[in-house]
Amino acid sequence: MCKKNRLEAFSDGVLAIIITIMVLEIKVPHGENFETLRPLLPVFICYVLSFVYVGIYWNNHHHMLHAARKVDSRVLWANLHLLFWLSLLPFATGWMGENHFAKLPVVLYGCVLLMAAIAYWILVRAFIHADGPDSVLAKAIGVDRKGNWSIILYVFAIPLAFYQELFAGALYITVAILWLIPDQRIERTLS
Amino acid sequence: MCKKNRLEAFSDGVLAIIITIMVLEIKVPHGENFETLRPLLPVFICYVLSFVYVGIYWNNHHHMLHAARKVDSRVLWANLHLLFWLSLLPFATGWMGENHFAKLPVVLYGCVLLMAAIAYWILVRAFIHADGPDSVLAKAIGVDRKGNWSIILYVFAIPLAFYQELFAGALYITVAILWLIPDQRIERTLS
Amino acid sequence: MCKKNRLEAFSDGVLAIIITIMVLEIKVPHGENFETLRPLLPVFICYVLSFVYVGIYWNNHHHMLHAARKVDSRVLWANLHLLFWLSLLPFATGWMGENHFAKLPVVLYGCVLLMAAIAYWILVRAFIHADGPDSVLAKAIGVDRKGNWSIILYVFAIPLAFYQELFAGALYITVAILWLIPDQRIERTLS
Amino acid sequence: MCKKNRLEAFSDGVLAIIITIMVLEIKVPHGENFETLRPLLPVFICYVLSFVYVGIYWNNHHHMLHAARKVDSRVLWANLHLLFWLSLLPFATGWMGENHFAKLPVVLYGCVLLMAAIAYWILVRAFIHADGPDSVLAKAIGVDRKGNWSIILYVFAIPLAFYQELFAGALYITVAILWLIPDQRIERTLS
Repeated sequence: MCKKNRLEAFSDGVLAIIITIMVLEIKVPHGENFETLRPLLPVFICYVLSFVYVGIYWNNHHHMLHAARKVDSRVLWANLHLLFWLSLLPFATGWMGENHFAKLPVVLYGCVLLMAAIAYWILVRAFIHADGPDSVLAKAIGVDRKGNWSIILYVFAIPLAFYQELFAGALYITVAILWLIPDQRIERTLS
Repeated sequence: MCKKNRLEAFSDGVLAIIITIMVLEIKVPHGENFETLRPLLPVFICYVLSFVYVGIYWNNHHHMLHAARKVDSRVLWANLHLLFWLSLLPFATGWMGENHFAKLPVVLYGCVLLMAAIAYWILVRAFIHADGPDSVLAKAIGVDRKGNWSIILYVFAIPLAFYQELFAGALYITVAILWLIPDQRIERTLS
Repeated sequence: MCKKNRLEAFSDGVLAIIITIMVLEIKVPHGENFETLRPLLPVFICYVLSFVYVGIYWNNHHHMLHAARKVDSRVLWANLHLLFWLSLLPFATGWMGENHFAKLPVVLYGCVLLMAAIAYWILVRAFIHADGPDSVLAKAIGVDRKGNWSIILYVFAIPLAFYQELFAGALYITVAILWLIPDQRIERTLS
Repeated sequence: MCKKNRLEAFSDGVLAIIITIMVLEIKVPHGENFETLRPLLPVFICYVLSFVYVGIYWNNHHHMLHAARKVDSRVLWANLHLLFWLSLLPFATGWMGENHFAKLPVVLYGCVLLMAAIAYWILVRAFIHADGPDSVLAKAIGVDRKGNWSIILYVFAIPLAFYQELFAGALYITVAILWLIPDQRIERTLS
């Protein structure tokens, strides 16, 4: 395997496990009726949101590596840095779900999302640094509007969560929807 | 890695973890005699059934991707959607096993199976959309009889579970057996 | 990826997770002195034994797939069947470790090993059936002495465990040592 | 897949799961305020340290396999031996974190790091034995200064932990920082 393939394989492994570990937070209840399921509803909603976020990161990561040509040590560590913040998502998801969207858990969840977004931004720079400013990747990324907007929205949502936790949650969902509209920049440039 | 390979690798990772996480629901008992194992029997039966189901999905996924040629954003998300429902299987399995096939858990298990079957149906459409209606894949799938029958049987089994939970369980097992007869359509068309 | 690669990737995923899930049975104790570690010793010994066993299966699987040429549905399901029994190893390991090598857990552990050995035997036949009796693989396997001896020793050890659990445990360790001497049949035939 | 690729894939799988399993030790607290997070701080610090260590091993493993040419049974088992010690890292991390850097857990953590470093040293010898003393890999490794220094520092830190656990912890961090400066020997020789 070339370096790029192994980076993909390792990242896929970590992302696959993060997604599946989150489902462990939905603990099997001891009763068998609807009442025992009801407290799991916020946990389930958080799981859906985090699943979508990990899916978004996997998709974007996938597209970026498709365009990238070179992988150096800087890229390897920038990638591990991204995986570090994403690995905290199961904890943040579980805490937010178990406390039914209380203030502090919503703040922490936002912080993890913000740090992951910043880590992704750093990873993009590391790839462009490795491939050079005239590379396919650099052109494909261009001005990363969605990435910048996400960071701005998180920075706005986190302090807001201290006062209006549900509105902050709505902002997190907004960012996810923003990304669900597929990122056609790289696809367009490459084809 | 091309897009198709990475889709396979990620899906394999998630499916491998789902299978292995289900085994965690079979909690190590504290005693050391047969009596401590007996309450684990329904959990074990559920584990076997779910293991077979994940195996079936892995096999079908494997065959479909072997025939598929193109992977676009629609396919990526349809695949994540399928993985989402399958990721709920460990929870549904554990709940059904711990409550010894009680009504509601059997209903929920059926719903997860139904949603996964629908998600698989959507994924097949997404692949055919990407490859075109005259592609090898489209011909290999043809009229997906087994897929359609599964959905019909689930839709029938779920309301039934409210009255006859064991009969519903028997229907889930029937669908699994239906699929265990290997899917020779794609193999035949390709060879 | 060709079928063979994907079979390898999926099996590697499941085996990697089985190995790592077993370590979860070594629960972090609440004290901080040697006394809190002592009850973990049998759990640790069981972990080492099971780690070695999974390592042996991974090595043999690796060598066999290196020699194999064709993968059909029969092979896919024989492989899933092997993974099923291996997936029960963490449970059997945890139960045997927590009960300090009590009778019944030692019997169950032996049964899981026996079923895995039989499943491996079936997988070898499935591969030979796919490749043909004159294939490189069929010649490389020849008479699978180690495989046959393992099954014989397990069959002998399991009833023994009811009377002499430690002697049965010693037999399991013997089989592991037998396999640790690397399987040079396939390597020799191929090179 | 050739033998090397499968070794990479399996190791990546195990390392990916080790990283993600460690995060499970950061248990979701039941309260929703800052007070409930505070006892998690040492657990979090341990997680960061262990994450960095696994990242270092993954990076070095990655570079070494990039230079290696041959994989034999000796290499396969040396690699499994390394993975065995790394698989104990989640346990050692959790124990050290939960006991707020108490003596014995810090000693045990150091022992696991030491054994992993020795296992890595053995793996390097196994690769050089497989490739021959004039191979690219043997030249690229040369005198493994960092590896040797790590082992010396661990040997020094472990007895120290009985008297000055925090100083021992600082030594573990020092070794990690030592490795974070990327290993340019292999990269330089290859390019």
